[in-house]
Amino acid sequence: MTTLDDLPLRDDLRGRTPYGAPQLDVPVRLNTNENSYPVPEPVVDAIAKALAGELRDLNRYPDRDAVALRADLAGYLGHGLTVEQVWAANGSNEIQQQLLQAFAGPGRSALGFVPAYSMHPLLALGTGTRWVPGRRGADFGLTADEAVAQVREHAPDVVFLCSPNNPTGTALDPAVVAAVLDAAPGMVVVDEAYAEFARPGTVSALAVLPGHPRLVVTRTMSKAFGFAGGRLGYLAADPAVVQAVQLVRLPYHLSALTQAAARAALAHRDALLGTVAAIKEQRDRIVAELRGRGLRVADSDANFVLFEVGGDQAAAWRTLLEHGVLVRDVGLPGWLRVTAGTPAETDAFLTAMEKL
Amino acid sequence: MTTLDDLPLRDDLRGRTPYGAPQLDVPVRLNTNENSYPVPEPVVDAIAKALAGELRDLNRYPDRDAVALRADLAGYLGHGLTVEQVWAANGSNEIQQQLLQAFAGPGRSALGFVPAYSMHPLLALGTGTRWVPGRRGADFGLTADEAVAQVREHAPDVVFLCSPNNPTGTALDPAVVAAVLDAAPGMVVVDEAYAEFARPGTVSALAVLPGHPRLVVTRTMSKAFGFAGGRLGYLAADPAVVQAVQLVRLPYHLSALTQAAARAALAHRDALLGTVAAIKEQRDRIVAELRGRGLRVADSDANFVLFEVGGDQAAAWRTLLEHGVLVRDVGLPGWLRVTAGTPAETDAFLTAMEKL
Repeated sequence: MTTLDDLPLRDDLRGRTPYGAPQLDVPVRLNTNENSYPVPEPVVDAIAKALAGELRDLNRYPDRDAVALRADLAGYLGHGLTVEQVWAANGSNEIQQQLLQAFAGPGRSALGFVPAYSMHPLLALGTGTRWVPGRRGADFGLTADEAVAQVREHAPDVVFLCSPNNPTGTALDPAVVAAVLDAAPGMVVVDEAYAEFARPGTVSALAVLPGHPRLVVTRTMSKAFGFAGGRLGYLAADPAVVQAVQLVRLPYHLSALTQAAARAALAHRDALLGTVAAIKEQRDRIVAELRGRGLRVADSDANFVLFEVGGDQAAAWRTLLEHGVLVRDVGLPGWLRVTAGTPAETDAFLTAMEKL
Repeated sequence: MTTLDDLPLRDDLRGRTPYGAPQLDVPVRLNTNENSYPVPEPVVDAIAKALAGELRDLNRYPDRDAVALRADLAGYLGHGLTVEQVWAANGSNEIQQQLLQAFAGPGRSALGFVPAYSMHPLLALGTGTRWVPGRRGADFGLTADEAVAQVREHAPDVVFLCSPNNPTGTALDPAVVAAVLDAAPGMVVVDEAYAEFARPGTVSALAVLPGHPRLVVTRTMSKAFGFAGGRLGYLAADPAVVQAVQLVRLPYHLSALTQAAARAALAHRDALLGTVAAIKEQRDRIVAELRGRGLRVADSDANFVLFEVGGDQAAAWRTLLEHGVLVRDVGLPGWLRVTAGTPAETDAFLTAMEKL
């Protein structure tokens, strides 16, 4: 039998395994930061109707520039953004891959402050970009001074900032974004996948876009919108950035179905985003409860919580799984990450935690 | 205003424009080799039903490995193929990009025999792969000797063969595939996007897969299936090749909607592929008619025809457009490409051709 070793695979891919959390059939799945609430029936009906309107003409390629969808996304984001400043793709992974293809790639580098979104180094690998793992403070924090010093030292072509950060959950101080933008020689990408869950007073980097053409803010409909299965990520930036990613995007990358379904979801944003308050309540409940039990817990502006298990996190992960609760081992010794879902899911998680 | 020149864009992207044929609102669109026949109503209903079944659970990520869809695709291809030998993505562009990421990329090279599918060099650019433009004979033909000599000279990491070739339309002699496979040091990708339209007796490279782990055959549902708007490309190869692309694929790259819609389309393949015979008839009619008018025309195994206009092809393209017929100027001096569609579209094209 032929194995991977027999094929002329790139050397930098040898010995690697595909990215991805286990997709296990478990009663309580709190490992991929999905929105636990199914799509409400009226929204199901609206999306179904929008999709039905596309089916007869599926023999034709979709709008290559997804103009109507981008206009809707701009309207949702506000901040005076227009269609020329917004770009969409199959998940924010594809958005960020396109950004690396345009602004990084062979002979260039990208820096992120780890632990952060674990796809960033893999996207760098996949695009031939040299990855520079930046450091955070002992409490997973990141100050403007710490960030600027590393940006000056490495002069990366692309800097990734995550706010709220994944897997820690904490939003960045806007002063960090401003300082990095000032110090970075290249592009600064602020990954705001979890922005809608942020605590009151959190400022989006969208507010800083005017006058900063090297700033890119990426978002997703996978989390707050509960649209993970629909695969829709997007960015907001200067129109020149949108022109740049259009040089590397695959033509017709967004299907007619994706465009129609996402537009219908955006039109029903109030119903879909209605779950955010309930999820934040569970998030805050998990933080308070675990702290009440004496565990260290990171501040969370997201729909998940990073908590210390006080020992071998892999063993703790297995114990929780044995009690029907799937959480995420993000490879941080002693820590695990749990998604905030429904009240019943929080109950199950907190009960299972008593077994540790 | 910020322009692309003001951004830290990669040097090799400077001065380029996005790939893509003009998306013009013209009565007769014969420029992107779409299937001119809308999706039949019973298939529309079946896809709508399949999509409706996914909508409530769009809050969850899709099957990352698209196992059920890949099994269906394997069943459609036949040749004893199994799910482990098939991989799917958002169009064959994404499939081929993943192949270059896994087997080419920085420090490696890819060779294609131009004129061929114009995305191949762009996919090389986007993945940091050095592109080697191979040559064809004066009649756009390619013999085994010509191909092997160039493969030996350049020793590319990936060779692209197109059969039927785009934009010429002609299928490859299987001897060319066999000889290239024997001579190439790396992977050999046979792009069979138009395979379903081939003339009787044409052999698919699928038949050569057993015992050739460095061979990859790529296909699409955009053409014969009339599913261009649904965006579904796929490959068949040794299971190790599928494992290789899984190292570089974006997680959850295929939406739940894409997977469900493609499966429903495959289940109704007889209805969808029912248009193929009618399209081939128009293709053969265009070839015969243009040859009858004394024009040089390439043999076609696809749903399009490459023909010589005997002069400035850009001017001829504009003349046809003025008469309501959009064809493709693929940049070959003196030649244009026209898609074979409905009988009425052929009528309109042939009438417009009289104005040249």
